[in-house]
Amino acid sequence: MRVEVLSTGTELLRGRTVDTNAAWLGAQLEKAGLEVRHRQTVDDHPGRLVDALKLACARADIVLLTGGLGPTEDDYTRSVAEEAFHRPLVFRPALWKAIRQRFRNHRIRMAAINRRQAYVPEGSVVLPNPHGSAPGFAIRQDGVFFAAMPGPPREMMPMFLDHVLPRIRRKAPFEVWEAKAFGLPEGTVDEAVRRAVGARATYGLTVRGGQVSISIRAEGSRRKKTLHDLSRRVRAALGECLYGRDLPEEVARGLLRAGKTISVAESCTGGLIAHKLTEVPGVSEVLLEAAVTYSNDSKVRRLGVPPGLIRTHGAVSEEVARAMALGAARSSGASMGVAVTGIAGPSGGSKEKPVGLCCMAVDGWVERRIFQGERSHVKERAAGFALNMVRLKLLREEGHAGKKLGLRGRR
Amino acid sequence: MRVEVLSTGTELLRGRTVDTNAAWLGAQLEKAGLEVRHRQTVDDHPGRLVDALKLACARADIVLLTGGLGPTEDDYTRSVAEEAFHRPLVFRPALWKAIRQRFRNHRIRMAAINRRQAYVPEGSVVLPNPHGSAPGFAIRQDGVFFAAMPGPPREMMPMFLDHVLPRIRRKAPFEVWEAKAFGLPEGTVDEAVRRAVGARATYGLTVRGGQVSISIRAEGSRRKKTLHDLSRRVRAALGECLYGRDLPEEVARGLLRAGKTISVAESCTGGLIAHKLTEVPGVSEVLLEAAVTYSNDSKVRRLGVPPGLIRTHGAVSEEVARAMALGAARSSGASMGVAVTGIAGPSGGSKEKPVGLCCMAVDGWVERRIFQGERSHVKERAAGFALNMVRLKLLREEGHAGKKLGLRGRR
Repeated sequence: MRVEVLSTGTELLRGRTVDTNAAWLGAQLEKAGLEVRHRQTVDDHPGRLVDALKLACARADIVLLTGGLGPTEDDYTRSVAEEAFHRPLVFRPALWKAIRQRFRNHRIRMAAINRRQAYVPEGSVVLPNPHGSAPGFAIRQDGVFFAAMPGPPREMMPMFLDHVLPRIRRKAPFEVWEAKAFGLPEGTVDEAVRRAVGARATYGLTVRGGQVSISIRAEGSRRKKTLHDLSRRVRAALGECLYGRDLPEEVARGLLRAGKTISVAESCTGGLIAHKLTEVPGVSEVLLEAAVTYSNDSKVRRLGVPPGLIRTHGAVSEEVARAMALGAARSSGASMGVAVTGIAGPSGGSKEKPVGLCCMAVDGWVERRIFQGERSHVKERAAGFALNMVRLKLLREEGHAGKKLGLRGRR
Repeated sequence: MRVEVLSTGTELLRGRTVDTNAAWLGAQLEKAGLEVRHRQTVDDHPGRLVDALKLACARADIVLLTGGLGPTEDDYTRSVAEEAFHRPLVFRPALWKAIRQRFRNHRIRMAAINRRQAYVPEGSVVLPNPHGSAPGFAIRQDGVFFAAMPGPPREMMPMFLDHVLPRIRRKAPFEVWEAKAFGLPEGTVDEAVRRAVGARATYGLTVRGGQVSISIRAEGSRRKKTLHDLSRRVRAALGECLYGRDLPEEVARGLLRAGKTISVAESCTGGLIAHKLTEVPGVSEVLLEAAVTYSNDSKVRRLGVPPGLIRTHGAVSEEVARAMALGAARSSGASMGVAVTGIAGPSGGSKEKPVGLCCMAVDGWVERRIFQGERSHVKERAAGFALNMVRLKLLREEGHAGKKLGLRGRR
């Protein structure tokens, strides 16, 4: 089953909006065993939209369109489907009633133009939208399944999961195993996975902020056994670098499992470690406190870093990182402390301490690295590195560590 | 000049990677006065890539491709250009020398396959890549300008700015005025801008995390005068809701201008305010300290919030938000304090205090709102709201406030 995604909206092409819908849909379709080969992004122009839709229908079995379902004059999706599928728009009284009810419930004055949203191409299935006024619709014609969904992710995602996916889910049997690795170059992970997998399955890798995501897919009747076997081989090759969930979630679960609490002290990462951790629901059980101690004074006052240490070694040093981590734990009563101090740039570097130099500490354990790139990249890498150190420390204490490869974070 | 962007890579279609390159290119091209009408995203398949490239060349004047320039066998961009433009790949000894030199400089062992990167289609211009081993190339043929650039943003962005943009920049005269607004529904901003602009220019709006970005573009010989006039009218309509830069930068500059310092106390936003502020280079001048005080104990100990206040009103209350903001300033010696306490969800809500309830305070000023949506959405909205309060307070103290519309953040 070939799938094509059509993203509409001038704002996507002008870069005002990053098309996260398309990436999310791609990941969902991949999980469901459906292959996306093309994506088209087209501006709000009816002629170009009709051409794009016809091209998609000619080469794909499933065409998923997002955007252009609003009530205004430059929302063309309804009329574009009308033209491409030769199905006149028909007024659906029940839809109109539901739209009016929605506005009444929210006590919002409805504009007359919202009536446009009660029209759908003849013979289409209406896809309900509990999160917005724009209903979607689906059409089956000439062997193609077509669905039009609204642009806002909050409305599109539930509509896709509840009303589109059940209609297109692939029946063919397959199974996917996923894992993450941190602290190894992509090439090294690639080699290890390729050797483990051989010709028995297919795999894919992606890298983000130092974390390599691995996905292995097996088909056939023995797919469960195959994946079990292959995942064991990957685990043996990558040892403690390998884990299951995204790093912040992995850390939060590790702390919960160990019955430990943590406090964070950040200088150059400026709150990013805390932000990442607090994206995990329920993290308040294990995260006691985080401090962004930008100034020397606040490192001394908040964390009890000895002023002499800063004078002797500088604020960006392994000694100060260690004192920050220990101070964060001590001053908050947490069982662990993690800290980062560094030079995120673009200025502030010197010959001995260049921009990108970061010292990361978990309790008494310190690592020093130089991360390349822009300010936000340095923050991202240092935060990931520090979280991975917490993960490793918990793992080693648990005694679960497999073949120890040591921590390698230079890339 | 019609521009088409071609993003290649199976990982983009599978949603492993969000195509930020395409959005960035769109914004750059828009600024340069070039219009993107189509974007195609194609997986790593030579046949489909050749078709996509031919389609793009048939309907656009400028075709920009990203990805597929690596050394491995599934990097097809070179051979796809060879086929689409009928130009055989030729070996460039100088390119080969530069690639080898790069590996030597970085003391990395080079694989033999990297030699593939020294081949480009006959007659193309080589686009240097100081940040990676993959050079780009550009071809002019049959009225079309084509450029192939590497996929990693760190390599693509400088190559585009230094070597592609100067070759395609539009000569036609136009001018753009940009501004942001916070605290008003998109519809209200839209109406105000539409009235101000009339038929004298074109405009676009986009919304992200409560911030509405406005862009007005004027052409013709009197474009400067027109924009000056229109921007004055928009300012008059939107008053103090309007500002020039992204919110964190606006706040950092406002503090610098006023000679003030700030400290941050976050509960439910969990470091996001600090993270946003520390994305701004040089913010260390004005940001003294940030504390993520998740537990009640840490609110008391770090910020001096009276325990009785938490007992009487609860940790999520206007009273505690105010005490946190005042405590953050007092305990760090900063001239201002900003604080958020709330319930990010998905659990932890009650009938009186539902999920999404957030109290934001700047010094003694407190606002209470209920934000809809998921955990990360609530964090994002509360952080933006609090930063906007800081911006407004600075503005009002400066006495620069225009027509006061009051702060309205409900959407």
